[in-house]
Amino acid sequence: MTNSEKALQMHEQWNGKIETTAKAHVNSREDLAIAYTPGVAEPCKVIAKDPDTAYKYTIKANTIAVVSDGSAVLGLGNIGARAAMPVMEGKAVLFKEFGGVNAVPICLDTQDTEEIIKTIVNIAPAFGGINLEDISAPRCFEIEERLKELLDIPVFHDDQHGTAIVVLAGVINALKVTGKAKESCKVVVNGAGSAGVAITKLLLTYGFQNVTMCDINGIISKASPNLNWMQEKMTEVTNLEGNTGTLADALKGADIFVGVSAPNIVTKEMVASMNQDAILFAMANPVPEIMPDLAKEAGAKVVGTGRSDFPNQVNNVVAFPGIFKGALEGRAAQITEEMKLATAKAIAGLVPDEELNENNILPEAFDPRVADAVSKAVKELI
Amino acid sequence: MTNSEKALQMHEQWNGKIETTAKAHVNSREDLAIAYTPGVAEPCKVIAKDPDTAYKYTIKANTIAVVSDGSAVLGLGNIGARAAMPVMEGKAVLFKEFGGVNAVPICLDTQDTEEIIKTIVNIAPAFGGINLEDISAPRCFEIEERLKELLDIPVFHDDQHGTAIVVLAGVINALKVTGKAKESCKVVVNGAGSAGVAITKLLLTYGFQNVTMCDINGIISKASPNLNWMQEKMTEVTNLEGNTGTLADALKGADIFVGVSAPNIVTKEMVASMNQDAILFAMANPVPEIMPDLAKEAGAKVVGTGRSDFPNQVNNVVAFPGIFKGALEGRAAQITEEMKLATAKAIAGLVPDEELNENNILPEAFDPRVADAVSKAVKELI
Repeated sequence: MTNSEKALQMHEQWNGKIETTAKAHVNSREDLAIAYTPGVAEPCKVIAKDPDTAYKYTIKANTIAVVSDGSAVLGLGNIGARAAMPVMEGKAVLFKEFGGVNAVPICLDTQDTEEIIKTIVNIAPAFGGINLEDISAPRCFEIEERLKELLDIPVFHDDQHGTAIVVLAGVINALKVTGKAKESCKVVVNGAGSAGVAITKLLLTYGFQNVTMCDINGIISKASPNLNWMQEKMTEVTNLEGNTGTLADALKGADIFVGVSAPNIVTKEMVASMNQDAILFAMANPVPEIMPDLAKEAGAKVVGTGRSDFPNQVNNVVAFPGIFKGALEGRAAQITEEMKLATAKAIAGLVPDEELNENNILPEAFDPRVADAVSKAVKELI
Repeated sequence: MTNSEKALQMHEQWNGKIETTAKAHVNSREDLAIAYTPGVAEPCKVIAKDPDTAYKYTIKANTIAVVSDGSAVLGLGNIGARAAMPVMEGKAVLFKEFGGVNAVPICLDTQDTEEIIKTIVNIAPAFGGINLEDISAPRCFEIEERLKELLDIPVFHDDQHGTAIVVLAGVINALKVTGKAKESCKVVVNGAGSAGVAITKLLLTYGFQNVTMCDINGIISKASPNLNWMQEKMTEVTNLEGNTGTLADALKGADIFVGVSAPNIVTKEMVASMNQDAILFAMANPVPEIMPDLAKEAGAKVVGTGRSDFPNQVNNVVAFPGIFKGALEGRAAQITEEMKLATAKAIAGLVPDEELNENNILPEAFDPRVADAVSKAVKELI
């Protein structure tokens, strides 16, 4: 049986990858009178007077919604709400299994920005946080920014920030391995969707000064046509020299390549044209921008991918469960830029210097220390 | 410790009465590759081609949303979304514990009819049914009717139909106990909100021909001022003689009183003015329209209340878990009037003739046969 066949069979067997389970059991009239009417009126009255006590008496304390409109699902694209559910359920499973966070998968039957925002605001009272997922760019930027203004609970678009945090964690350790300094590195980010933009922003926040974004048309500059508003905004802080040209042009003399783009679009020649001890994160999935062995042959020092069968897997699961665990435990109103930086550093710090090498720059997804280290980093900043 | 104190303490201890639990466990890279990427792409692709397979591969098969806007909560009134959460969580617990149905409590941060409808439509793809709860009349009528038109999953306002079903079940058995015939009974329903309207409708559907509704101003007739659109509609099928007057006037010669109104508003004199072997469902909670002992002293034969410490408790929990269990298992697109009737009959049928008496007309909430009997009645009509 192929992996695909097995996945289908198991999904049928699960018939829903999560369930709701009662923490309050109702086996007698007395139980019913406490968990439901008339006893339930008491916490209701207290919350009506002091809404903050919702965190004391309800699932808001430890439950988030995983919300998607199904417009940009994994490698599948715009498959819509119903078809996106298995991914959101999977994410809900990971939140619980890795972070102990209760998560409700919700797929929206609208792809209208205003309606998405209004719907999420309307359902927010039940939840302690909103994890946005697989919403296409540039709508995802506006949706997240507006929700952050409108809600008093953390809103986090994992495709953007989860990816950016883990890439930065990998970059931090790759710099150590190669002896490069962030201030002098030339970075090329290929792919200007949700992940590419968020990675670029976080690298700049961390202290990189020379980042160039590319998309399918090559180097993005102020002169590029057809940019969306976010990409235009990015031209103010990237490619400050105003270069134009192809991805191959951008890579000449670059120290770091980060790809969230398409399979096999980086050649050995391009890698060879990069600076010595080049660092590549080739995260197109399942086929990366360049296969690790080819990149190494061309002189790359550190290569990460999205795949678990190569070293240095960039896997968001080391970030998002711990981030929401920490945010909920500390009752953060937002996931701030500082928390993202701290999280990246905490993840990087889980690989001790003596174990650090070009094939070991990131902790394993199943490393049991990860969620606690990440949640601690978040909580320290609340 | 009082019951109220204990309820508050337990709610703090539970810190959320339900949790999400993984059915798909992720303990290895192999697990991850099946439950999440890349394996998860398979069910996504199948659902994208055939949306109906969502019932095969996702939580839609066995999960409903319990949705409220917090506008008409139990005896608490309009306490808003956050404060209503303990009730919706309690309801979610009952769905799971009594019916095996997964239920997600969602409280909406809006009380605007159009926004509520749009929000529920938008979140519907994740769910196999929508249980509306504690939404004030007359908005609840429009919201439910519109959602039934817009959605292809069952929508059920429990305050209306759950209550109506259990009252009808009690009435069916009370008729047997008293030897009265539905065709000749005079029925008075006091309270013209969501429950009163639904009870009246279901009694008419069952075959009662003489039903009078009353509200705080007395008998409702075509001449009554300030009726909402639903109450106006009800004047076309109730009080066909066009009587006016007080509740006391209405009760003269009545066979059945159904109260979903206010404490202590029915006197012994009123009961004494009713027909012989009067049947009363006095469901104001916690203090009924008349206490059972007083009603009995005044000549009533059968008295039911909402309370568990008197005989004949009218408790929705004998209806809603089994109804959704059956609707989900049979994949009903709607809960029809026929299903409501069949459910009421099934509940009534759980009290065998030899055990039937004026103090035993309804099965116990904890009778383990109830949910299966109800779900079977629903499924037979799909």
